[in-house]
Amino acid sequence: MTLEGKWFTEVSKESGLAFSLRVNEKLHEEQTDFQKIEIYATTDFGNLMVIDGFIMLTDRDNFLYHEMMSHPVLYTHPAPERVLIIGGGDCGTLKEVLKHPEVKQAQQVEIDERVTRLSEQYFPALCESNNDARAELHFVDGLKWVKETEAGFYDVIIVDSTDPVGPAEGLFNEAFYRDCHAALGDNGILVQQSESPLVHLKLLTSMRAAMLNAGFSQVNTLGFPQPVYPSGWWSATMAGKTGDLREFRSADSKNRPFETLYYSSEMHQAALIEPPLLTKA
Amino acid sequence: MTLEGKWFTEVSKESGLAFSLRVNEKLHEEQTDFQKIEIYATTDFGNLMVIDGFIMLTDRDNFLYHEMMSHPVLYTHPAPERVLIIGGGDCGTLKEVLKHPEVKQAQQVEIDERVTRLSEQYFPALCESNNDARAELHFVDGLKWVKETEAGFYDVIIVDSTDPVGPAEGLFNEAFYRDCHAALGDNGILVQQSESPLVHLKLLTSMRAAMLNAGFSQVNTLGFPQPVYPSGWWSATMAGKTGDLREFRSADSKNRPFETLYYSSEMHQAALIEPPLLTKA
Repeated sequence: MTLEGKWFTEVSKESGLAFSLRVNEKLHEEQTDFQKIEIYATTDFGNLMVIDGFIMLTDRDNFLYHEMMSHPVLYTHPAPERVLIIGGGDCGTLKEVLKHPEVKQAQQVEIDERVTRLSEQYFPALCESNNDARAELHFVDGLKWVKETEAGFYDVIIVDSTDPVGPAEGLFNEAFYRDCHAALGDNGILVQQSESPLVHLKLLTSMRAAMLNAGFSQVNTLGFPQPVYPSGWWSATMAGKTGDLREFRSADSKNRPFETLYYSSEMHQAALIEPPLLTKA
Repeated sequence: MTLEGKWFTEVSKESGLAFSLRVNEKLHEEQTDFQKIEIYATTDFGNLMVIDGFIMLTDRDNFLYHEMMSHPVLYTHPAPERVLIIGGGDCGTLKEVLKHPEVKQAQQVEIDERVTRLSEQYFPALCESNNDARAELHFVDGLKWVKETEAGFYDVIIVDSTDPVGPAEGLFNEAFYRDCHAALGDNGILVQQSESPLVHLKLLTSMRAAMLNAGFSQVNTLGFPQPVYPSGWWSATMAGKTGDLREFRSADSKNRPFETLYYSSEMHQAALIEPPLLTKA
């Protein structure tokens, strides 16, 4: 069957699959200093942001990714006061982080300011907490930022980046994880989007190994659905300096002062379980 | 981006999305008395079966669906001896069911014999237990079969059907669930593939309501990834006559005498958790 009408298609050449969303129109396109950004209006998924041909997010399903990148790690740390987000320029992760009253400072370090400016324009719901007094938006290189951070400064580091090609390539290796380890306090936890357990299993296992080699004592991969990413099955991997990543502040999570669509205390517990195919790999 | 080279694309018109697999060649195509069946060799997902334009399964990822359609329900029933599979002509569910030593009789009732014959040819791994002495393959109408079953005969009924259009339409309504309820014994459990919690939420909630209206005392929806189905986020819904569907034979599940890639005792527990968006709906 051919695609009749207007569609945006992302081809995953290395996986032999492609995913398409039907669109009404292209709302914007620009080449920034770092990458090409496109915004579309889809017929059923709201607005769509694409970077260098890869789907970043849609209005309709970004809640899955943003909830799972923020709430599990924040409820795992005993007292997450200082949070760093590397990347995350659409501000959706920042918005979720700021829902936690324990957080006193949330810094978003995105290399490309245009991602955030376009998100403000086309995804205003994700940016509605950008003026929170605890939020700081910095538009510089996250790699350099972490390297220059005072030792032990952060409680949580969230790496909310694009795939490991282009500007985000340096965020998927042991040297970067060592810098994160140094920048985190004693109970510190790093969490990073870690691609698909089905079609990127090799990358995922190499990320886990690199995190452990960098000094983290434990890793745990959280699986969750993400329809607009290749295979629809996505993951985030937590790496902890100390403690058990399977323990979390479940009473706080149960009594959380905000609404969620996918995350819950029980879903948190569930997402911690790794399938045999991952454990074996 | 357009799809260069050869691809098979399934368009979900009502959801505004499409999914494509890159193919090397079409291996077979036929119009049976019931539907059009196509078989392709893909570049990365092994063989692919398509019915009436809808992707049914691939070699690479069918383990997710087949494990989750069989092992949770079989470990939930206290003693699953007599199992009925409605549909399931590719025999992948039958194969998983027969891994359970408690099962004494497993009947597969598929309306279209050609599905099974083509699976034997193109998906031989799924059919390797078809000669098990406990297996029976019947090629008749599943609706009629259930209606004519002696009351209380089955322990478990698995509805492994296509989407609710065409031959499978009658498998998604209260009248059919009433017949299943009557055909099940006291501890009987029905499980049915129940589409995507994201893009088919309305259908899923109406199925759950119809199951309860038909006399089942409890329903529980299991979520799992299924890359080749629309949105990649799929579900199976269990309906029980008595007892708590969140309790299962976890010791037996832990000590299961077979290997799995996705299912485990812990994944079973995890899959039982329903996200807030489903509970609210």
